[in-house]
Amino acid sequence: MTKHILLMEGPDAKGLIYQVVKVLFKNECNIIRQDEYVSPSGQFFMRTEFEGSDELNPENILQELRSVVSNKEIKFRTNPKKKKDIVILCTKEHHCLSDLITRYHFQELEANVLAVISNYDILEPYVSKFGIPFHTVSHVGLSREAHENAIIDVIKPYKPEYLVLAKYMRILTPGFVNQFHERIINIHHSFLPAFIGANPYKQAYERGVKIIGATAHFVNNDLDDGPIIAQDIKKVSHRFTAKDMSREGKDVEKTVLTKALKLVFNDRVFIHDNRTIIL
Amino acid sequence: MTKHILLMEGPDAKGLIYQVVKVLFKNECNIIRQDEYVSPSGQFFMRTEFEGSDELNPENILQELRSVVSNKEIKFRTNPKKKKDIVILCTKEHHCLSDLITRYHFQELEANVLAVISNYDILEPYVSKFGIPFHTVSHVGLSREAHENAIIDVIKPYKPEYLVLAKYMRILTPGFVNQFHERIINIHHSFLPAFIGANPYKQAYERGVKIIGATAHFVNNDLDDGPIIAQDIKKVSHRFTAKDMSREGKDVEKTVLTKALKLVFNDRVFIHDNRTIIL
Amino acid sequence: MTKHILLMEGPDAKGLIYQVVKVLFKNECNIIRQDEYVSPSGQFFMRTEFEGSDELNPENILQELRSVVSNKEIKFRTNPKKKKDIVILCTKEHHCLSDLITRYHFQELEANVLAVISNYDILEPYVSKFGIPFHTVSHVGLSREAHENAIIDVIKPYKPEYLVLAKYMRILTPGFVNQFHERIINIHHSFLPAFIGANPYKQAYERGVKIIGATAHFVNNDLDDGPIIAQDIKKVSHRFTAKDMSREGKDVEKTVLTKALKLVFNDRVFIHDNRTIIL
Amino acid sequence: MTKHILLMEGPDAKGLIYQVVKVLFKNECNIIRQDEYVSPSGQFFMRTEFEGSDELNPENILQELRSVVSNKEIKFRTNPKKKKDIVILCTKEHHCLSDLITRYHFQELEANVLAVISNYDILEPYVSKFGIPFHTVSHVGLSREAHENAIIDVIKPYKPEYLVLAKYMRILTPGFVNQFHERIINIHHSFLPAFIGANPYKQAYERGVKIIGATAHFVNNDLDDGPIIAQDIKKVSHRFTAKDMSREGKDVEKTVLTKALKLVFNDRVFIHDNRTIIL
Repeated sequence: MTKHILLMEGPDAKGLIYQVVKVLFKNECNIIRQDEYVSPSGQFFMRTEFEGSDELNPENILQELRSVVSNKEIKFRTNPKKKKDIVILCTKEHHCLSDLITRYHFQELEANVLAVISNYDILEPYVSKFGIPFHTVSHVGLSREAHENAIIDVIKPYKPEYLVLAKYMRILTPGFVNQFHERIINIHHSFLPAFIGANPYKQAYERGVKIIGATAHFVNNDLDDGPIIAQDIKKVSHRFTAKDMSREGKDVEKTVLTKALKLVFNDRVFIHDNRTIIL
Repeated sequence: MTKHILLMEGPDAKGLIYQVVKVLFKNECNIIRQDEYVSPSGQFFMRTEFEGSDELNPENILQELRSVVSNKEIKFRTNPKKKKDIVILCTKEHHCLSDLITRYHFQELEANVLAVISNYDILEPYVSKFGIPFHTVSHVGLSREAHENAIIDVIKPYKPEYLVLAKYMRILTPGFVNQFHERIINIHHSFLPAFIGANPYKQAYERGVKIIGATAHFVNNDLDDGPIIAQDIKKVSHRFTAKDMSREGKDVEKTVLTKALKLVFNDRVFIHDNRTIIL
Repeated sequence: MTKHILLMEGPDAKGLIYQVVKVLFKNECNIIRQDEYVSPSGQFFMRTEFEGSDELNPENILQELRSVVSNKEIKFRTNPKKKKDIVILCTKEHHCLSDLITRYHFQELEANVLAVISNYDILEPYVSKFGIPFHTVSHVGLSREAHENAIIDVIKPYKPEYLVLAKYMRILTPGFVNQFHERIINIHHSFLPAFIGANPYKQAYERGVKIIGATAHFVNNDLDDGPIIAQDIKKVSHRFTAKDMSREGKDVEKTVLTKALKLVFNDRVFIHDNRTIIL
Repeated sequence: MTKHILLMEGPDAKGLIYQVVKVLFKNECNIIRQDEYVSPSGQFFMRTEFEGSDELNPENILQELRSVVSNKEIKFRTNPKKKKDIVILCTKEHHCLSDLITRYHFQELEANVLAVISNYDILEPYVSKFGIPFHTVSHVGLSREAHENAIIDVIKPYKPEYLVLAKYMRILTPGFVNQFHERIINIHHSFLPAFIGANPYKQAYERGVKIIGATAHFVNNDLDDGPIIAQDIKKVSHRFTAKDMSREGKDVEKTVLTKALKLVFNDRVFIHDNRTIIL
């Protein structure tokens, strides 16, 4: 038996679940887990893990589903549980990067780290220990666009499915973001929407908050405004300076980024209306 | 449209989901949410929220499901979302009781509190403010069995679906427990299985733990060994005496009990193999 | 032996702790617990719990401390552990109010609830059960100032040390706030500074956050911008509508408010530079 | 100015704080932070961070303190904030080890990792990347004592202050433990005292708990019974198999171990009566 994951999204309609389940039943597939959600606005989402005989061609299932389900707007994707290809961008801080690299090295990341790109060479010695290509693309002396184009030139040959911004500290232009629509995942060091923009820990200190946090989100054209995938927090006290918060917040940042990537890499995340649906 | 909840449990088999969904589809029911789980031992659980026309008779659905599903061991229950009838037992401490009474008073508890029974009269003035019958059944001078029989005599006329032990500090005999099989919910003041038995906070203090907790569970014949519904914890430090833990733990106790009751009263809890499956 | 609490605040200087400890030692006082903090800007805070003989006059200690400590800007307060007098303001929601009332009724609140004031009479039947004066001061037909003046007229005779806004849903004017400088505590239903202003749960839903929260803070003239005392959060998912968040957030709100009040009522909170120092 | 940390422990007595503070004052030291605790049994603990002139000899302070404080049972330790020397023991799992190695590599661990010892060579390639000596000491064919002696022979030349058991999966004999009294720190994969002994995740699964956890503790002669330093938990559901718990629990294990080590390495942990006092 081979395992498949079926992802559906579209306007809700009567009998949708029945029609899908019927196709799977007729093809002698065994549903392992099925989760669905209908948004208040009437959008239907379903994620189905099922097993079929090794000879089963998911493309046939898809075709059958498309012909059976009358509403043509519905999209199907099947994704056998395979590892995603990713490229990681970072700057100087290692904590998110090293967590991903360590998991990758020990084959616990549901992704292949094809390369690491940074605008500094600080993390090269660490990354190189693990046989992962490291590209330094300095921004010095380059316009934002020129720098981004240089990065894109490095990324392109790797054909990654996702870009992971593991504390990449430069703002991306819409031109860059548009080339990787809904495929860039960032970790922001605050519980968004609090402390949007630069120096969130400094902002947090100045506001005197008792919790700090981190947010992993897809990047869209509005800074720090993309669909949120995961968030978590850590309690702090008046004794924390902005620097303490920054240091102590790192553990939350890496935990949240890793959690978000796990969800994305396991095909559990839908994006709709600037929100994530996680099934 | 009327809302229904269908609960199924039985040995897993191919096509189960399909057969159920088909019956609902034919009866023009609309599935709002469906969650299923198959245990490693092969037991199948499914909870389906669906809407049907106001004329739909759930009994007909049940009959149809029974005839369609070949495996006769499968059990169905339909529960329109109605409030459960409960009787609460307590002793001297108010925190779990008052939380339930307050929610009940403001119609936020998915249950009708028919009566409160205690072996002390301490909490009577509070309970009486809310027009809820309060019965003091003192254990003084009675054997354990005689006391339990006196309590059962008080309970019986209320015909409650569930008994809630809101810090009822006496151990129940198998004779009592058997009369309310899988219908008694207790709050234990430790993160079970740590600190089984009496004085868990004293035990916790002596062991020097850094977390304390509470566990809501169904009561079975073995003390503190029934199926766990909900657990939560609170961090403590060396500065907490056993008494401090007891005082600070109360908030966790009431939170956990309330959470567990909400799950049970919303028909989200299955019991299997001394474990709860929460869908 | 009688217990005292000494609170000091002022510019840091060499030997401050020594000078204070010396005075206590000479007066045969026994330090039970002493916590101090120096802010990055050089402000010194110290809270000392100590026991002295029953004859000891804290005023004498204060005088001695004032003469010994050269820096005249240092302020001392001694507060024997006595209950604070409070008045609670609320609107229609009961959850924060009923939690406080219940704790007060069972003598677990470190405060005397002198009265409850609301712009609606909805919660009167509940409050009246506990023999606490309830004043309905409707805002209908009144200007904001006129309404606030009417409320102040009700408050004045009670001479409360603190006003607790237990989900009081109207914005207070600077005129009102100034009359109770650093003595008004509010519960805001978001993890500030996220979702300042009206309808934070609606804002949270629209932003698609994965955590919601609550913030207890002192009220100053800028809306939702006063010194934060306590914050906590709850995880949510895409399944939560704004209404669900509002319902589920209530438990966090009441927990956070109660926690903050406990700190304030136990003289553990200093305010400095729009931040709280909690010792 | 040089920073010092003074740790005191002994029977409580009147004026203790005063006498210590006086010595520091006379030596023109500036107290940065001072925390003290008196146990219910009357044991006094104090941790003082202070700054003194670079010429100040902590030994002189100690001598002066010893002559001033009448009670001779009181022990003083001064520890300038220097890194501790440690040796790590592990078996096959990398998650705790790699977290420590990564932090060490990036100079974020308050310790020098002198060597790693394992009864398997599985983790050697990883450790060797970082230039840290790795010693495989197989237990195959050896008695427990012979194996432990072989390990001790490897450890001895390193003269570590602490041994860290980063998922070292073999039980240590009293003979071994006694050689490193209060200097061995272990991570146990349950919220002790729940699930003492082997296979805690299997036990947790079988009990049907809704939380799993991890405990970092000093090792004494009774298995899993030493003083607890730090604990944390993670919520689980019925969907978690024992294997899932084991995988998901790893993140808690490494977080808890790192947290505990940070406390120990910063001289913040006292041990008394099989409990830790953390100041």
